[in-house]
Amino acid sequence: MATRVGVVAAVLAILCLTLAGPASALDREKLLSEPGVYATFAVFKVDEDWWKLDKAARASTAAEVKAVFQKHGDHVITDTYLLRGLSERADFFVRVHSTEMLHNQNFLVDLMGTGLGKYLANTSTFNGLTKKANYVPALSDDLKAALKTPLDPGPKPYAIVVPIRKDAAWWHASQDERNAMMKEHTDASIAYLKTVKRKLYHASGLDDLDFITYFETAKLDDFNNLIIALERVQENRHNKQFGYPTLLGTIRPLEEILDILTR
Amino acid sequence: MATRVGVVAAVLAILCLTLAGPASALDREKLLSEPGVYATFAVFKVDEDWWKLDKAARASTAAEVKAVFQKHGDHVITDTYLLRGLSERADFFVRVHSTEMLHNQNFLVDLMGTGLGKYLANTSTFNGLTKKANYVPALSDDLKAALKTPLDPGPKPYAIVVPIRKDAAWWHASQDERNAMMKEHTDASIAYLKTVKRKLYHASGLDDLDFITYFETAKLDDFNNLIIALERVQENRHNKQFGYPTLLGTIRPLEEILDILTR
Amino acid sequence: MATRVGVVAAVLAILCLTLAGPASALDREKLLSEPGVYATFAVFKVDEDWWKLDKAARASTAAEVKAVFQKHGDHVITDTYLLRGLSERADFFVRVHSTEMLHNQNFLVDLMGTGLGKYLANTSTFNGLTKKANYVPALSDDLKAALKTPLDPGPKPYAIVVPIRKDAAWWHASQDERNAMMKEHTDASIAYLKTVKRKLYHASGLDDLDFITYFETAKLDDFNNLIIALERVQENRHNKQFGYPTLLGTIRPLEEILDILTR
Amino acid sequence: MATRVGVVAAVLAILCLTLAGPASALDREKLLSEPGVYATFAVFKVDEDWWKLDKAARASTAAEVKAVFQKHGDHVITDTYLLRGLSERADFFVRVHSTEMLHNQNFLVDLMGTGLGKYLANTSTFNGLTKKANYVPALSDDLKAALKTPLDPGPKPYAIVVPIRKDAAWWHASQDERNAMMKEHTDASIAYLKTVKRKLYHASGLDDLDFITYFETAKLDDFNNLIIALERVQENRHNKQFGYPTLLGTIRPLEEILDILTR
Amino acid sequence: MATRVGVVAAVLAILCLTLAGPASALDREKLLSEPGVYATFAVFKVDEDWWKLDKAARASTAAEVKAVFQKHGDHVITDTYLLRGLSERADFFVRVHSTEMLHNQNFLVDLMGTGLGKYLANTSTFNGLTKKANYVPALSDDLKAALKTPLDPGPKPYAIVVPIRKDAAWWHASQDERNAMMKEHTDASIAYLKTVKRKLYHASGLDDLDFITYFETAKLDDFNNLIIALERVQENRHNKQFGYPTLLGTIRPLEEILDILTR
Repeated sequence: MATRVGVVAAVLAILCLTLAGPASALDREKLLSEPGVYATFAVFKVDEDWWKLDKAARASTAAEVKAVFQKHGDHVITDTYLLRGLSERADFFVRVHSTEMLHNQNFLVDLMGTGLGKYLANTSTFNGLTKKANYVPALSDDLKAALKTPLDPGPKPYAIVVPIRKDAAWWHASQDERNAMMKEHTDASIAYLKTVKRKLYHASGLDDLDFITYFETAKLDDFNNLIIALERVQENRHNKQFGYPTLLGTIRPLEEILDILTR
Repeated sequence: MATRVGVVAAVLAILCLTLAGPASALDREKLLSEPGVYATFAVFKVDEDWWKLDKAARASTAAEVKAVFQKHGDHVITDTYLLRGLSERADFFVRVHSTEMLHNQNFLVDLMGTGLGKYLANTSTFNGLTKKANYVPALSDDLKAALKTPLDPGPKPYAIVVPIRKDAAWWHASQDERNAMMKEHTDASIAYLKTVKRKLYHASGLDDLDFITYFETAKLDDFNNLIIALERVQENRHNKQFGYPTLLGTIRPLEEILDILTR
Repeated sequence: MATRVGVVAAVLAILCLTLAGPASALDREKLLSEPGVYATFAVFKVDEDWWKLDKAARASTAAEVKAVFQKHGDHVITDTYLLRGLSERADFFVRVHSTEMLHNQNFLVDLMGTGLGKYLANTSTFNGLTKKANYVPALSDDLKAALKTPLDPGPKPYAIVVPIRKDAAWWHASQDERNAMMKEHTDASIAYLKTVKRKLYHASGLDDLDFITYFETAKLDDFNNLIIALERVQENRHNKQFGYPTLLGTIRPLEEILDILTR
Repeated sequence: MATRVGVVAAVLAILCLTLAGPASALDREKLLSEPGVYATFAVFKVDEDWWKLDKAARASTAAEVKAVFQKHGDHVITDTYLLRGLSERADFFVRVHSTEMLHNQNFLVDLMGTGLGKYLANTSTFNGLTKKANYVPALSDDLKAALKTPLDPGPKPYAIVVPIRKDAAWWHASQDERNAMMKEHTDASIAYLKTVKRKLYHASGLDDLDFITYFETAKLDDFNNLIIALERVQENRHNKQFGYPTLLGTIRPLEEILDILTR
Repeated sequence: MATRVGVVAAVLAILCLTLAGPASALDREKLLSEPGVYATFAVFKVDEDWWKLDKAARASTAAEVKAVFQKHGDHVITDTYLLRGLSERADFFVRVHSTEMLHNQNFLVDLMGTGLGKYLANTSTFNGLTKKANYVPALSDDLKAALKTPLDPGPKPYAIVVPIRKDAAWWHASQDERNAMMKEHTDASIAYLKTVKRKLYHASGLDDLDFITYFETAKLDDFNNLIIALERVQENRHNKQFGYPTLLGTIRPLEEILDILTR
């Protein structure tokens, strides 16, 4: 068989990336706010056979799952969400952030290799990365100031993920045209800055999406009004895909999700 | 691992919401008529393995299921419907109402955790909330009066759920244009107010839908004519999704559905 | 828990409808020719596990299935069709007619509750009702006369079901425009009246369809030519869905279908 | 229960058709070249449980399968194709030809009733019939002569099936317009007559297709160029469906396919 | 039964093609760079039952799988990729190259016949062939020179596969129009030649695709920018399908993939 220099090189690269992880814990706030961070939203539904295991067999996997989260804590930060009851598509999802997509993969491969993982169907996965804001520089000073409106204090138990794909006309619009549409978009969303937290990921080429939009709120009625406001701006005409699936869930610690799955 | 203040806060919020439930029973009529109520339509198909259990094993879960309905009776009101025989998509669905979407989730997580629940495939879930009527204020006094036509007395055994998504042109129409279309819609439906009961839920952002429409009737021929009348108004040109799935079922008490599944 | 007057009333209604069935046998010809009759096409595929049962276990369910057909004979009339071999979608379907959709549901719930039924996946269900002909009154006397062309005598072993959904433009066309299109449709089909028997059901709101069209023939080449003729008339531009699935099968008595499934 | 004259008549018809088969072997070349022949393409994927049977259990079904092919040899001719490895959709398909669609069904019901058949998922089925060439009479004498170009001698191991559905505009085009488009189509394909063998089936009403196109070749690069040439003619604008699924496989005798499935 | 000359001839052809393989090892670099090479991308997801086998049973299949890769090393070259964790669609894929599609099929049939293979669901397969560059000859000398920009040295651990189908307008554009669009496409991609390696396969007629595009990179942010640049050129208006599925994975040697699946 011919020598496979490319593969060997790729393996070395994977080894390097794997070993290059920081010895100390990750800076969560930095990974959640800076550009150049890779995110994977991995959505899981528990296999029907899982429920036919006896309770002890199910419960015994919880420690193994927690150990995988801990082991990868130097490379990835993770957030967990319960979809069960509010979505037919899945039971829960994990949002993974790191500085290299490979770290996300390695964590998820280990998670799917646990006793629980072997009963998980991976129903959706979205991959994206964070970038500097594209349109903010072109906004008026007033609008820039409005964007700094602080979030209302207090917990935001609900999380919503909306994947988006734009049409060709969007990508062919000039920068000025897109600036104008994003100004209209921003105007429409100002009223909800206090109650809805938002985060944007770019996905073109990493997935069959252009963007992944992520929201947290305590007020689903406000969130419903925000989405209606965004359906009314010109930009909405360029959404070839908006949702499908929209994921509505609640933020829950890993322990609580494991408890629901193993009780 | 970095501290996860957000998650902790969200958990506290969930605890607060969970504990904040009223000590007394819910006011069913109020929840079914007021704005600001969250509804989840959870649609289930029984797993083929369920039927391979022996009758006693199946029957033993009925009490557990009823207990879950009872336990959550302080937070949610529920209605149950049989789809089996009239829809290939599912066997039954539960309509859940409460003042917080989280109550709906907690009830459904418990339902899906019962002996029966472990054999249920959740084939569709629709989430929505009730709001004040948007278009009624702009209608003529005559039409407003006509809308007060009372329903014919007597039972209405059939229920139909039609999820709807509007196109971008609908959302970009001016309020006047939408008022005109809703006037035409209302004119077309007046003839059926006596025999078809209707209820509307708003879903944008809570699901891949804009509206969930719910109907009850004893006369499916009248209902068929109502839908044809609504297909003939301008508003129909803006329905990107209408049905898919349309759920046609019969209103049945939980006991009867359990009896069908466990006999 | 709040009293559930609506549910109780609905249950009473179901009981009344159930008990109101005629004591004597149904008039098959009347149900197959009159308006106001409810039809359900229930399509089934046998679960792969069925075939892994031993022959005796499979054969033992035949009598139970026949008894269900007999038990409901006072409320519904039924016809059975073999799809196996000619459609990847299913093995057979049952066409059920009655004066109340609830009778169709009750029969099918019982059928799906038999030993065989527990191994049946219900892959499609179409619900419709019969109505008086909409367009015939506007046709010329010549065309009305032509429509009375009698079917050629002799058996018609093939049956085809084509579900149809019209686009918004169809429903917004004026009565005159639709009359003109239906005249063109009728002209195109006259040549096939002798060899292709047809029956129409209205489905708007009872399913994600507007019409269910049902055909019987001994000559599939004539039927192929009929469909091509109908693809060439203006009405075809308004078929948002035509088929998907088209069901091509052969009319077979229940006994023969049971024999194929239990041999 | 009301008498079911129609069903009885249909059964008699089926019996007649079944008994009317020729006592002698079928004329394969005639069935493969004449109009008025019914074809069924039945596509199968082996169930994952099949592979968990032990080798002896799998091997024991081969004789039974061959016997079914032999038993129906007086009514149908069959060709077998291996898709496994080149298509995710299926493992193999059978092309069945006969003078009555019912013969195809009866053969396939028997095939699916064998020990192997019970582990086959029928993933696609296409039904069609052969007719006299529609457009050749209108072609120029030169083009008619060119169409007689003989195939290069030698085996053609690859077979490709492409199902097609035309749009409404195609069916509404005048005969002259369609003649012109088919002339352009024919011009584009002349260059490939030597290396690509073609056969056409009409499917409107017998399936959710208008045509089934079947090809054999030894040169897949020529076939790729033929399809590109056909993508460049006007007719291609009227293909609502072209492929989906395209089936690319290799012609293999039944014995070889059974060997692959039972080794 | 009629003699089946065609089948026999096809079998002989398959035998000839099978026996005609080179005695010596394949020239990997040549197969990866020349036109006229057939490629199959076979994508696999491990069946949920696989994970329920004990570790020893899973591990015992690794040697068998490696032997299949080795056995076919005279006819095909193979590359392996891990999707698990980054795609819900599959766990890994194999890219197979050879001078005859039949070699690809024979290798994959053997792979799917191993102990592991029997637990693999083949979720996607793309077939294509390499050709001489269509548009390069028409580019300016400057652009031709730019296209020779060497890749940055160093490993490229990520691989992305994007299947593409063009619309009818693309195929009906004149050669000049397509040259102009491909010039715009090339201009947009020049900036990424250093960090993104690309390879193109033609698929029309061999699959429900027109092209399979394959990329390798170490910098997913650059790849994301490349795709955005390509979304902004006119050619993008002619992509009826772009992705769906986009496959994002990491290049991993067979041994590592087997280790992940059998650990």
